[in-house]
Amino acid sequence: MSDAGLESAVAPPTADTARVGLDPELVGKVAEALEVGEIDRARELIEPLHYADLADLIEALSADQRVLLVEMMRRKFPAEIIPELDEPVRNEVAELLGTQDLAAAIAKLDSDDALLLIDGLEEARRRHVLHAIPAALRRELEEGLAFPDDSAGRLMQREVVAVPQYWTVGECIDDMRESDELPSDFYDIFVVDSKHRPVGGVPLDKLVRSKRSVRIGDIMKSDLRPIPLDMDQEQVAFLFKQHDLTSAPVVDRMGRLVGTITIDDIVDVVEEEAEEDMLRLHGVTDTDVHTPLLETVRSRFVWLLINLGTAFLASSVIGLFEHALEKIVALAVLMPITASMGGNAGTQTMTVAVRALATRDLTTANALRIMWKEVLVGGINGFLFALITGAIAIAWFGDWLLGLCIAGAMVFDLIAAGFAGIVIPIISQRFRIDPAISSTVVLTTVTDVIGFFSFLGLATLLLL
Amino acid sequence: MSDAGLESAVAPPTADTARVGLDPELVGKVAEALEVGEIDRARELIEPLHYADLADLIEALSADQRVLLVEMMRRKFPAEIIPELDEPVRNEVAELLGTQDLAAAIAKLDSDDALLLIDGLEEARRRHVLHAIPAALRRELEEGLAFPDDSAGRLMQREVVAVPQYWTVGECIDDMRESDELPSDFYDIFVVDSKHRPVGGVPLDKLVRSKRSVRIGDIMKSDLRPIPLDMDQEQVAFLFKQHDLTSAPVVDRMGRLVGTITIDDIVDVVEEEAEEDMLRLHGVTDTDVHTPLLETVRSRFVWLLINLGTAFLASSVIGLFEHALEKIVALAVLMPITASMGGNAGTQTMTVAVRALATRDLTTANALRIMWKEVLVGGINGFLFALITGAIAIAWFGDWLLGLCIAGAMVFDLIAAGFAGIVIPIISQRFRIDPAISSTVVLTTVTDVIGFFSFLGLATLLLL
Repeated sequence: MSDAGLESAVAPPTADTARVGLDPELVGKVAEALEVGEIDRARELIEPLHYADLADLIEALSADQRVLLVEMMRRKFPAEIIPELDEPVRNEVAELLGTQDLAAAIAKLDSDDALLLIDGLEEARRRHVLHAIPAALRRELEEGLAFPDDSAGRLMQREVVAVPQYWTVGECIDDMRESDELPSDFYDIFVVDSKHRPVGGVPLDKLVRSKRSVRIGDIMKSDLRPIPLDMDQEQVAFLFKQHDLTSAPVVDRMGRLVGTITIDDIVDVVEEEAEEDMLRLHGVTDTDVHTPLLETVRSRFVWLLINLGTAFLASSVIGLFEHALEKIVALAVLMPITASMGGNAGTQTMTVAVRALATRDLTTANALRIMWKEVLVGGINGFLFALITGAIAIAWFGDWLLGLCIAGAMVFDLIAAGFAGIVIPIISQRFRIDPAISSTVVLTTVTDVIGFFSFLGLATLLLL
Repeated sequence: MSDAGLESAVAPPTADTARVGLDPELVGKVAEALEVGEIDRARELIEPLHYADLADLIEALSADQRVLLVEMMRRKFPAEIIPELDEPVRNEVAELLGTQDLAAAIAKLDSDDALLLIDGLEEARRRHVLHAIPAALRRELEEGLAFPDDSAGRLMQREVVAVPQYWTVGECIDDMRESDELPSDFYDIFVVDSKHRPVGGVPLDKLVRSKRSVRIGDIMKSDLRPIPLDMDQEQVAFLFKQHDLTSAPVVDRMGRLVGTITIDDIVDVVEEEAEEDMLRLHGVTDTDVHTPLLETVRSRFVWLLINLGTAFLASSVIGLFEHALEKIVALAVLMPITASMGGNAGTQTMTVAVRALATRDLTTANALRIMWKEVLVGGINGFLFALITGAIAIAWFGDWLLGLCIAGAMVFDLIAAGFAGIVIPIISQRFRIDPAISSTVVLTTVTDVIGFFSFLGLATLLLL
């Protein structure tokens, strides 16, 4: 295996020196060159960049600089950049490129990427762009757009290698060497019956390891997991993770092979879904630092409005105890502590529950057991923090009954937090509401109301 | 391509009928069979399950039922189940299997899975199990354990196909047909120079598409991204996503090819990292509904203790205004509203910032611009909610100065929330602290303190 004449010239990278992603300094340099009109210098700076880094560069520039850059790159704009851009920037670039250049770029993309891009365009522009695309591709894209958002139909590539099972390994390889219509990347070939329904799959490594005379039917894996066109992408991702799939056949209602989903699409889905849970927990609908100002204001406003409602609800609970608060000002000082602890403890439980529901670690089979555990965790921590908080309150205000009130409220609220933290997401899921969306608001309402009510209520009983 | 004799017998699945994951009812049936000692029935029930579903079944059972099931499966325990189990359950099963059966199972796993399993064992058991493993494999595992947690060295498979670039496609394929030492799954072969340093890669689909006489050097992609052994898995995942890689060569300090990381390992990393951010934001360190009770109590306790400290800090701010609170009880009633809105608005901003830092959408190149945007978002929403909240407060307590106080505090706190929500994670990252870990505590301290101080302070100025 020796080949003395050939050596890689680059010094081996280490974890510190390996360049990962775009150099922030480069952004500044390109921005400067663009602004002073040194087009050649800018062109030179971006020359060595990978398309994904170029996409990051476009995102990092200000809107004005972006116009200059796209203008400069227009003549040979690399189509691969477009799917890498975050949605708001993508639409901006689509706008800048104009119908003709955009249609040309789309025609160069894989069907799933093209679909993503077209789908993000505004209605009028989408019609114009589709019109400028060759008829065959246009029909394919229009079919794709008919599938529900986030469905397998949207994720799949239509290009797929399908062979009958009586073929030999040699025939398959010869056929692939001849064919012009192969997908750009693939890891498995699929075996279909006379009705074009998938009956097996052969990973490429298995294919190249087998002798030419071997029949495909003898080396194929027949435990396929055919994916229906309308399956939700979250379920598709679960199947891939659960069964360690690299690619899976997508089938239509008649069970016929119509495309394939590969694991590289799943990476994005998995990240998107985990991220979505996190963002939704906090009422954020756009993942995106690039969303325009007013749209950001609007999208956050709704959540804050709901939260304002629950905050006033909590206030009205406090209002019930005006009499106690008038008499003992220490109650007002200590009052937020219980509610804050309840909110935090409940959110801990809920965060775990929301992820466990998504990864199917929490199911009806073990819900009761896990709920019971969380209530116990709440009870034990409630007891510990009752001791700590009670002691501090007594030391601060020199009133042991006041300490008893806050201690009692702490136990109540942390048990309620454990219970609500697990029950709310489960109930949401049962009613087919994404547990991440509704849960925080409901949870903090519960912990605030119980926190204020139990503390001020106990104080009214014991201190007045 | 017609093959009339062969047809798939199963009805095509739809999104509703496609079975995804373990049937919860089956868990109950297996549990029952185990408890009444109907071993044959239990065996029959689990017979058709995929190993990943078996792993889910083991997780869903109670600890006692788990003992019975593992006992029943012991004689031919499928090794592939083990890496699919969540850590606490994995250690339980390892314990139940005992040293000999566990060592036998580990020997059957891929090197990365074996490493994961060994790493999770307690010190004493790990020594015993390593001792029971054949020497060659043991040495490999011990080397693997020497790499830092979450590094490329831990993720990689050592098995890799490497060829010199003067070979032809035909020679490669023939060699793979002969070889017994191929990895169990692979998507690319790597081209190495005389010092075994990677100089190129050939995806398998490219290989099978090329004629036998073509030289490997002529079809290889030479823009490789060699990954150093000590690179953090988060960086590795970023590289894979950024450059749409399916596999990448891992190199040692001399730049020699020592293994390969494939995209199926990356799916888990991506999910783990996104999930970690979400959990850390809420002070949860274990993702896991299967973590034992007392460990859960302990891990949550620390975070709650920190939160208690900040809650008392906020209380002491309230304590500064005892005089105002004694005079006007409405202040105590309305006081939590501003703080709650500030906390929520800040968390929205921070959630976006933490994710954007992780996905490198937020960098030093655009930090200032995005910070400015978030402050504006805070200001605009602050103004809107000042109007709403002020109006409600006036209607409720009939005091327009009180309404002015809460309105002013709302503007202050929401601007502070936007600013803190973006600045805190950026500063954490600068000091190499995971932004997700520290940020929430600091943020809510800021928004609570500013919320209480500005409301009660304004009230002291205007109302007393």
